[in-house]
Amino acid sequence: MFDYQAAFETAVEQVKGEGRYRVFADLKRVRGQFPKAIRRRADGSEQDVVVWCSNDYLGMGQHPVVLDAMKDEVDAAGAGAGGTRNISGTTRSAVDLEAELASWHRKEAALLFTSGYVANEATLTTLQRILPGLIIFSDSLNHASMIAGIRNGGCERHIFAHNDLEHLEALLAAAPADAPKLIAFESVYSMDGDIADLAGTIALAKKYGAMTYLDEVHAVGLYGPTGAGVAERDGLLDGIDIVECTLGKAIGVMGGYIAADAVIIDAVRSWASGFIFTTSLPPALTAGALASVRHLKAHPELRDAHQERAATLKARFVAAGIPVMESVSHIVPVFVGDPVHTKMISDMLLEQHGIYVQPINYPTVPKGTERLRFTPSPNHTDAMMDDLVQAMDALWTHCNVARLPAVA
Amino acid sequence: MFDYQAAFETAVEQVKGEGRYRVFADLKRVRGQFPKAIRRRADGSEQDVVVWCSNDYLGMGQHPVVLDAMKDEVDAAGAGAGGTRNISGTTRSAVDLEAELASWHRKEAALLFTSGYVANEATLTTLQRILPGLIIFSDSLNHASMIAGIRNGGCERHIFAHNDLEHLEALLAAAPADAPKLIAFESVYSMDGDIADLAGTIALAKKYGAMTYLDEVHAVGLYGPTGAGVAERDGLLDGIDIVECTLGKAIGVMGGYIAADAVIIDAVRSWASGFIFTTSLPPALTAGALASVRHLKAHPELRDAHQERAATLKARFVAAGIPVMESVSHIVPVFVGDPVHTKMISDMLLEQHGIYVQPINYPTVPKGTERLRFTPSPNHTDAMMDDLVQAMDALWTHCNVARLPAVA
Repeated sequence: MFDYQAAFETAVEQVKGEGRYRVFADLKRVRGQFPKAIRRRADGSEQDVVVWCSNDYLGMGQHPVVLDAMKDEVDAAGAGAGGTRNISGTTRSAVDLEAELASWHRKEAALLFTSGYVANEATLTTLQRILPGLIIFSDSLNHASMIAGIRNGGCERHIFAHNDLEHLEALLAAAPADAPKLIAFESVYSMDGDIADLAGTIALAKKYGAMTYLDEVHAVGLYGPTGAGVAERDGLLDGIDIVECTLGKAIGVMGGYIAADAVIIDAVRSWASGFIFTTSLPPALTAGALASVRHLKAHPELRDAHQERAATLKARFVAAGIPVMESVSHIVPVFVGDPVHTKMISDMLLEQHGIYVQPINYPTVPKGTERLRFTPSPNHTDAMMDDLVQAMDALWTHCNVARLPAVA
Repeated sequence: MFDYQAAFETAVEQVKGEGRYRVFADLKRVRGQFPKAIRRRADGSEQDVVVWCSNDYLGMGQHPVVLDAMKDEVDAAGAGAGGTRNISGTTRSAVDLEAELASWHRKEAALLFTSGYVANEATLTTLQRILPGLIIFSDSLNHASMIAGIRNGGCERHIFAHNDLEHLEALLAAAPADAPKLIAFESVYSMDGDIADLAGTIALAKKYGAMTYLDEVHAVGLYGPTGAGVAERDGLLDGIDIVECTLGKAIGVMGGYIAADAVIIDAVRSWASGFIFTTSLPPALTAGALASVRHLKAHPELRDAHQERAATLKARFVAAGIPVMESVSHIVPVFVGDPVHTKMISDMLLEQHGIYVQPINYPTVPKGTERLRFTPSPNHTDAMMDDLVQAMDALWTHCNVARLPAVA
């Protein structure tokens, strides 16, 4: 008979052998002190840390307007939704949140999912059922959830080189003119910090009769006058057919959604297994997200502060010769180029300096481009940056990692 | 060029034509009054309703021990987790909850997912990657999330007739003896209310060298001395290799998990895309679920009250000649056998009697077996049952629906 124990052990050993076995940092977030947190070690002892890799980009995960809305809704409506959307689980704050999100992105309707991952996976799979013969054109650096959705539907798909519109056009031109087509891409790519050319992509979509599907999970709340994302910043909300976002990063809570024309939303709502057969988001989460979105729309100064912090950290790393990678967004990636060094620096930052930034290794990024990825928020102070830059400078020397040419 | 608008319209019309277009009831849960809720109609007017179809089986979604834990954790830790498990999102209450869940099912380890749907989909897909050549034997009535996970992995699969162990054995016997095999089934099937033969299934698994994967989402919290599910009730916790459950039904919150040997959990943790690349559950949800599980373990009288309510409702329906379907569990399905009648009765119950129970039509159940599905909780009073049975009796006459032979 088959030896299951050995097979599972082999699967774990393979991950360890590839240097991508993950040890999760056990963190206690402390409300009011973000980005500070308390780490619990495996032996039970505790350590104060500063978190430098959170996707709670604006600190909304501790904002009183969000927390009060959550607690009020727990008092008013209780804990869980109690069912799927169709089976007693359509709670009022979810309906109100969908209306708010649709309005934010200037679409007719929006649809909530339990996560951004599920929003991508379910929508992209379902579009292939709704549009038989669909051909999907997917950016090579698209998120795992988009890849899962595209693959699980089984349609014809073409991967275009990251942000390479010439390659995309060549692939579009080679496809049948009358076939349904979808261009799936992201605005902000979270591991490199670059931003897609939305105008160019939309122009190609119009030229070749394709729909556009834009993932703004690392942009929503952060870009545009009201925070509706890069499409809003670029004045291109109308050019995106389906926008997909998360409630779990800048909005500070959990969940995902799409926004689009009403008929698109109605079709996905009616066909998507990952939407239909799952318990809805708890009322406290939708109420908290609703309060967060309303706050974000009205507070552009949060976005200004966020960009200032990212620019300042980049400048300080450059001044210290730390090889910060080119990024036009709030993401601050630092190049290491070796998985063992990356893990070692991350471990030493944590144990010796109380600085938590997790290593980014293959398969999240290509081999040879291993890196650290910092996400400064408006809550990261100058003093925290002093500590970080000093620690990085010391470790760069200690570990003999390459510096920027001008400073090395 | 392709006409997208027409294609989406066609997709919606098809669903309408099949009688399965869903109109969600917009509900405001009122803490402390469950199963009462306030429905908002499309015109904005409101109506008091009694919810008879919630999966908040024990009313834990409004229990003070859960709500207090959630609010305390919002105060302590804030709103969202801020990242994936690997990127700053491993919050302390999630770690503590996993330990509690593992202990509950007497397994070495447990792993949280954002939902039960994702737990099934991600685990079943991932097992196919970890165990190349895996053959999955799947009950014909398994939930959509299990089907999605099995299909998305692309392995060889065999569907056995629902709860038919002879058919299962024939399929197992026909497979190569040394191939890895997995039997995927549920304990309580939520649309019929029947319960699988765990002992018989485990015996076949041992005989043919297969693993067992048991979905207990409609059983956890509800069966067994401490509420660990049917496997605990039957004294068979050790015979299940992987148990999958939800935090969104009897536990009253949201989320899903698996529990198993540590090496199985470690392998799934390391390989499952739907686990790795998604924001973790908010601390308030894991803290609320932890409080709920601890309460459920210590309060078997909740389970007794739950079974009593279900038995009472079945008896009262039978006495009134309402065709309650055979069910050995807490699920109370009532046979209608026609999608139009089912929808009409559901609509009239809601509009005329303030009783909310959604119609169960194809494809959730086979055509010709359309039904209503009641889930009485300990919070459903005798007076509510009086109202329900009177309303059903009147509608059964009004709509001329078939009654039980003895009473018709």
